[in-house]
Amino acid sequence: MADFVYINKINEAFLTKNDIEIVERKGIGHPDTICDAIVDEVSRQLSLYYMENFGQILHHNVDKATLAAGASEATFGGGRVLEPIYLLIVGRAATLVKTENGFKRVPIGSIVMNAANRYIEENFRYLDPKKHVVVDYKIRPGSADLVGLFSKHNSIPLANDTSVGVSFAPLSPTENLVYQTERLLNSRELKKDVPELGEDIKVMGLRRDNKIRLTIAAAMISSLVPDLSHYLSVKETVTERVEKLADKLAPDYEVEVFVNTADIIDEKNPLVYLTVTGTSAEAGDDGQVGRGNRVNGLITPYRPMTLEAAAGKNPVNHVGKIYSVLARQIANAIVKEIPEIKTVYVEILSQIGKPINKPQIANVAVNIDESVNWNTIKSTVQAITEEKIANVTKITEAFLKGEIIVY
Amino acid sequence: MADFVYINKINEAFLTKNDIEIVERKGIGHPDTICDAIVDEVSRQLSLYYMENFGQILHHNVDKATLAAGASEATFGGGRVLEPIYLLIVGRAATLVKTENGFKRVPIGSIVMNAANRYIEENFRYLDPKKHVVVDYKIRPGSADLVGLFSKHNSIPLANDTSVGVSFAPLSPTENLVYQTERLLNSRELKKDVPELGEDIKVMGLRRDNKIRLTIAAAMISSLVPDLSHYLSVKETVTERVEKLADKLAPDYEVEVFVNTADIIDEKNPLVYLTVTGTSAEAGDDGQVGRGNRVNGLITPYRPMTLEAAAGKNPVNHVGKIYSVLARQIANAIVKEIPEIKTVYVEILSQIGKPINKPQIANVAVNIDESVNWNTIKSTVQAITEEKIANVTKITEAFLKGEIIVY
Amino acid sequence: MADFVYINKINEAFLTKNDIEIVERKGIGHPDTICDAIVDEVSRQLSLYYMENFGQILHHNVDKATLAAGASEATFGGGRVLEPIYLLIVGRAATLVKTENGFKRVPIGSIVMNAANRYIEENFRYLDPKKHVVVDYKIRPGSADLVGLFSKHNSIPLANDTSVGVSFAPLSPTENLVYQTERLLNSRELKKDVPELGEDIKVMGLRRDNKIRLTIAAAMISSLVPDLSHYLSVKETVTERVEKLADKLAPDYEVEVFVNTADIIDEKNPLVYLTVTGTSAEAGDDGQVGRGNRVNGLITPYRPMTLEAAAGKNPVNHVGKIYSVLARQIANAIVKEIPEIKTVYVEILSQIGKPINKPQIANVAVNIDESVNWNTIKSTVQAITEEKIANVTKITEAFLKGEIIVY
Amino acid sequence: MADFVYINKINEAFLTKNDIEIVERKGIGHPDTICDAIVDEVSRQLSLYYMENFGQILHHNVDKATLAAGASEATFGGGRVLEPIYLLIVGRAATLVKTENGFKRVPIGSIVMNAANRYIEENFRYLDPKKHVVVDYKIRPGSADLVGLFSKHNSIPLANDTSVGVSFAPLSPTENLVYQTERLLNSRELKKDVPELGEDIKVMGLRRDNKIRLTIAAAMISSLVPDLSHYLSVKETVTERVEKLADKLAPDYEVEVFVNTADIIDEKNPLVYLTVTGTSAEAGDDGQVGRGNRVNGLITPYRPMTLEAAAGKNPVNHVGKIYSVLARQIANAIVKEIPEIKTVYVEILSQIGKPINKPQIANVAVNIDESVNWNTIKSTVQAITEEKIANVTKITEAFLKGEIIVY
Repeated sequence: MADFVYINKINEAFLTKNDIEIVERKGIGHPDTICDAIVDEVSRQLSLYYMENFGQILHHNVDKATLAAGASEATFGGGRVLEPIYLLIVGRAATLVKTENGFKRVPIGSIVMNAANRYIEENFRYLDPKKHVVVDYKIRPGSADLVGLFSKHNSIPLANDTSVGVSFAPLSPTENLVYQTERLLNSRELKKDVPELGEDIKVMGLRRDNKIRLTIAAAMISSLVPDLSHYLSVKETVTERVEKLADKLAPDYEVEVFVNTADIIDEKNPLVYLTVTGTSAEAGDDGQVGRGNRVNGLITPYRPMTLEAAAGKNPVNHVGKIYSVLARQIANAIVKEIPEIKTVYVEILSQIGKPINKPQIANVAVNIDESVNWNTIKSTVQAITEEKIANVTKITEAFLKGEIIVY
Repeated sequence: MADFVYINKINEAFLTKNDIEIVERKGIGHPDTICDAIVDEVSRQLSLYYMENFGQILHHNVDKATLAAGASEATFGGGRVLEPIYLLIVGRAATLVKTENGFKRVPIGSIVMNAANRYIEENFRYLDPKKHVVVDYKIRPGSADLVGLFSKHNSIPLANDTSVGVSFAPLSPTENLVYQTERLLNSRELKKDVPELGEDIKVMGLRRDNKIRLTIAAAMISSLVPDLSHYLSVKETVTERVEKLADKLAPDYEVEVFVNTADIIDEKNPLVYLTVTGTSAEAGDDGQVGRGNRVNGLITPYRPMTLEAAAGKNPVNHVGKIYSVLARQIANAIVKEIPEIKTVYVEILSQIGKPINKPQIANVAVNIDESVNWNTIKSTVQAITEEKIANVTKITEAFLKGEIIVY
Repeated sequence: MADFVYINKINEAFLTKNDIEIVERKGIGHPDTICDAIVDEVSRQLSLYYMENFGQILHHNVDKATLAAGASEATFGGGRVLEPIYLLIVGRAATLVKTENGFKRVPIGSIVMNAANRYIEENFRYLDPKKHVVVDYKIRPGSADLVGLFSKHNSIPLANDTSVGVSFAPLSPTENLVYQTERLLNSRELKKDVPELGEDIKVMGLRRDNKIRLTIAAAMISSLVPDLSHYLSVKETVTERVEKLADKLAPDYEVEVFVNTADIIDEKNPLVYLTVTGTSAEAGDDGQVGRGNRVNGLITPYRPMTLEAAAGKNPVNHVGKIYSVLARQIANAIVKEIPEIKTVYVEILSQIGKPINKPQIANVAVNIDESVNWNTIKSTVQAITEEKIANVTKITEAFLKGEIIVY
Repeated sequence: MADFVYINKINEAFLTKNDIEIVERKGIGHPDTICDAIVDEVSRQLSLYYMENFGQILHHNVDKATLAAGASEATFGGGRVLEPIYLLIVGRAATLVKTENGFKRVPIGSIVMNAANRYIEENFRYLDPKKHVVVDYKIRPGSADLVGLFSKHNSIPLANDTSVGVSFAPLSPTENLVYQTERLLNSRELKKDVPELGEDIKVMGLRRDNKIRLTIAAAMISSLVPDLSHYLSVKETVTERVEKLADKLAPDYEVEVFVNTADIIDEKNPLVYLTVTGTSAEAGDDGQVGRGNRVNGLITPYRPMTLEAAAGKNPVNHVGKIYSVLARQIANAIVKEIPEIKTVYVEILSQIGKPINKPQIANVAVNIDESVNWNTIKSTVQAITEEKIANVTKITEAFLKGEIIVY
């Protein structure tokens, strides 16, 4: 039995005992999410490159980027981009690798450009990476001259830092609804029916008692929206679709849906949320890595969160990324396995320089009815936790396959 | 009585009930703090400029910046910078203002340069803004063509967003110790005694029960450290000074102090934490706004936190900044006024478009012994909370005077 | 008769009397030409935009750009780009235009991106603007706050500076051969036959007496060149094609053709001129505006030249551009009209602030056999010169249509 | 006797036979000159660094830079900079050098920053490198992975290209006057008397027959010029000083001096040439390397010139730099030694891959009275030419000492 695992029973979670819940999700087209997604794809493509060429993932950390919004004029039925978005990606990576035959250079620039182009092309319909986005980067080698290998073959990587990963499960109905609302609105199916809806969709859920107020900020594609009445009809459609989703996902709650509440619906001089490209990054909204969703896709100020930006960190030994994902996997596995558990909180603290399967502490706090037999539950929780920690390196593999989304 | 104020009694805080506490402070020379500090100074100088020239603070939001580390070689008794730090500041600001006599331009570039130079010169001794730092910026007007005024004279500004500000008080002994340790090590007094100590000082506190482990990462100034034994003696001095501080601030705890634990003290090939300039930003450590300390100067994953980057946001109506500061002021005032309170948590939720002295909710949770008369306490708490909210615009004034530090 | 026109007879031109001629042409894929071409296209698209939206071409001057080469590894049958080319375009342009209804913004960013993409796509086959080139720009308004119009309708623009435009005609056989060699090698027809030949082709001609040595530096497309013998066969084909051209264009000269003379044809470790994209800008060769061909497409140090960079200058009143083109048109018209003329040199000096059809001086020096009647010739030359100057504003129209190439 | 040296007698120079001369000098504060000067200082400091650390000058070529002007408001008695100048320096240099003990990194960033700061501080009084200029750079290794040494010890470097260097001597009276005028106006002495005079001084000389019209564009320091009448008095002083110089240097010519002819001297709304910092680069005038003065400090479209940008090129084997300087030295030495010579033109053509003391051709054309004994002259010219070529590597040494100015 791993001596670093602590399983506690708690009666109720402090933060959710409140009558209030605030939950937010920044959609795939939000400037912060764009930053997260692109640097994480850079890390993934870089990792794949390292694996293929050197048999192991070399040191890198590309968890910084700033997006400076462009300028545009979006008008009913038209609009134009005046100045492109500027995206600067910053980080460290082994770019010159010593091999038996001398040195091998890593195509860092191509990897960055491909990652950025790929994300934009796969996730946007009206944002053209060639015309609307300038991608630049400053990725230099780390402080060591020629960065060594992470670890010898088959050994467990050593934690790069003392960091804590936290997570919880299950999502509350409000959290789930917020998450699924954005997923619905950015689904291919819905975009077929409502092509006017852009990709920059921010969903905020505020629950007080059993009332949930969903506030959706959704950029519209100006060229597809000929006039104000059309715009209003799109808002109506979106509202209906989300209401239908809420009926299904949160039947026990009164859910109110509000779309683009900042609109000024003045016939003569309407001020509505139109964009040429589908994202507010085209004009006025800057972005950064690590300022948006946590690893579970949500921002939940009433829940334990860390400030760690998982996106862009290497998936081998950067515990800021790995333990965030690990904590989430443990929490999810526990509630899946043990339906009696109401909520579980997981915190994992690394020990710098120690193997990542040997955290300092893995703390699991379980909220469960008094009536349930704690001892049985506890040992199952312990087993799941230990098993997930033991297999922590599988996270790396899953990341390489693109199976792990951290935003 | 304000109907948005809720005062609750709680028995104990979920997160601090744990036997474990993790607390971190990134010092004034840390790459993330450099970003926070400079953009916040940009906002302050810009606000002052607007006040002086237009009688009011105009729209701006400069809460994004990325620092790309330079390259250096730090060696005992010497060292050199190979490549300067690159700092890109990104944001929005009114740069062309319509006045009665036409247009007036805002010297945005000078303000940025001055803010950056000022912070570096006031806080570093060996980092030369002219030689070691390239400061660039992309600050454009917001999406509106000619940004209007925030509000008419004497009226209360309207919240720019739906955001939540959270805080708590008092600091736990661990939190206080972590905070004060950095403050001590970066004080002018200590720098006189131990000039070898650089400004990039990160302090992490890990408490288990009554044992606190303080881990300090402190960059040394290479030119002042002739050799390994000198280096070790500086570490010893630092350790002693912090131990003395701990005796004073946390007498009831067993405190262990560790300095630069990643050092490899190998006589022949030592690997220690030397820098030419006093900050790891010179080589290998990138930074960003909003990734470091919260408004109380600490990172506390076991306490409620938001992801809001207060730094760089305008101090007039950006509730992400103002409510973070306001929550902290309320919490501090409550525990100062009512010594019986063990801990107080404050959460304030804004209402977009509504006056900032009318939040949606101000939730105050008080942890207090059962023996204390709750009703008396409650009404005092209520009064303090209401008074602070009513005077929220004083935060703007204090910010202009430089009295509010948000990092 | 225009009092600023001077027609002189000269016996022979100093520079061509030499036994030596040196002539160079940097092809359309050369880093300097890329800069020239893109900024000139920016000026053209900007001019068209101004015309369409404001009925006149507004102030601009985009005659600066620097291309920082990327990094690549080109190998037989393959190769890869490691880092993209970075192109920074710098200049001045009216970006905010005061109209009757307020202000209108100019989509300067879109114009820059389109111009760059267009040039690359039309002129390269293997250089992908999305993957291989980062285009950035710093184009700000001029020093005047809101730049006024150049001139009232139908009036003649005023010269923006005191500049001199020089040209000559006809091209000597060497000059013509150098020019046509690059045009042949970058023609669609030849690229069909020899797709391996890249677009970065530099031709240098050195004539001593009746011997011309043509030295061609031609980037090859690495993916299409499987091995050294294939490479050598391409060089042979290129040589033959150019020899055939020389037979036609310079039958009276002994022409030797050398291709990629810096190659090291070592079977084991050959060092040859391979590129992934067709241009040396991919790795190692930087570029700038105004450092390549003059307006006649050539660099001719033994002929009068100015340092004016015509590319990117506005086509309305920037005499550095207009008079360079005008001098060339006059020289060409003269030799076309009067076959007896051996060489004509034209120099036109503007007068700042005066209408561009009123230069200070237009000096025409004619080299002609003694036997020819000078008076007849002279008056024809005078007439042609005056007519061209009188119609100088037609150059603007031709530029807008894309009929004038200045590189 | 070197077989590549050709000495010819010419009767008169084609270009100066004209009644017209146009000569220009861009002063040390002109945007183009700033670019030239800083990259040449980068090359010099880099060369010194290489010498000191590796015993030889390694490969580099930093002959590209673009200066994007800032923004400012200059007003009588005051003024302010709104946006700093942005200077991007681009080039190639060996930054990672293989030595016996592994690799040594070159502090390329520090060298760039120091060179820029140094030039600005030594040549400007009101331009503050810390506040008014953002210096950035993209200097990467060349296309070879680890750039080798130029040459073995004590051997002669091999020409890196086929280039031609041209020069002439002596300067004509107009040329000399233009050059000396700028030198006077930017001298410490004159700046003491006329501190209002900025550093950005452009002098254009136009001679027709024996009349010289000197047009001077001189930026004034706005803070030192309280009003229009003061401004006019400074212009008067400058005019007088230059007239006095002209009396001395060009006594046989009628010289007219015009200062800031574009001024609009309207009492109410004067438009005059004021700057905050002394250079037009602060607002509106961009710059580039290689677009200003040739190696002799002048732009002379009526004389043979090359487009070679000498500034920033390595002083070892880059014949574009070395032969430009060499041609000038030969021409100067010849006219100094042989007073009978009226004008001498020197052209030197390199041979790529051959030792730089073995040019393909060194062509010297001498204009001398028929009465002089040509044979004696010719052999002296030949001797001087051969001697200078034989000692060509001394140019490298002189460059390192800062004795050679190429702008």
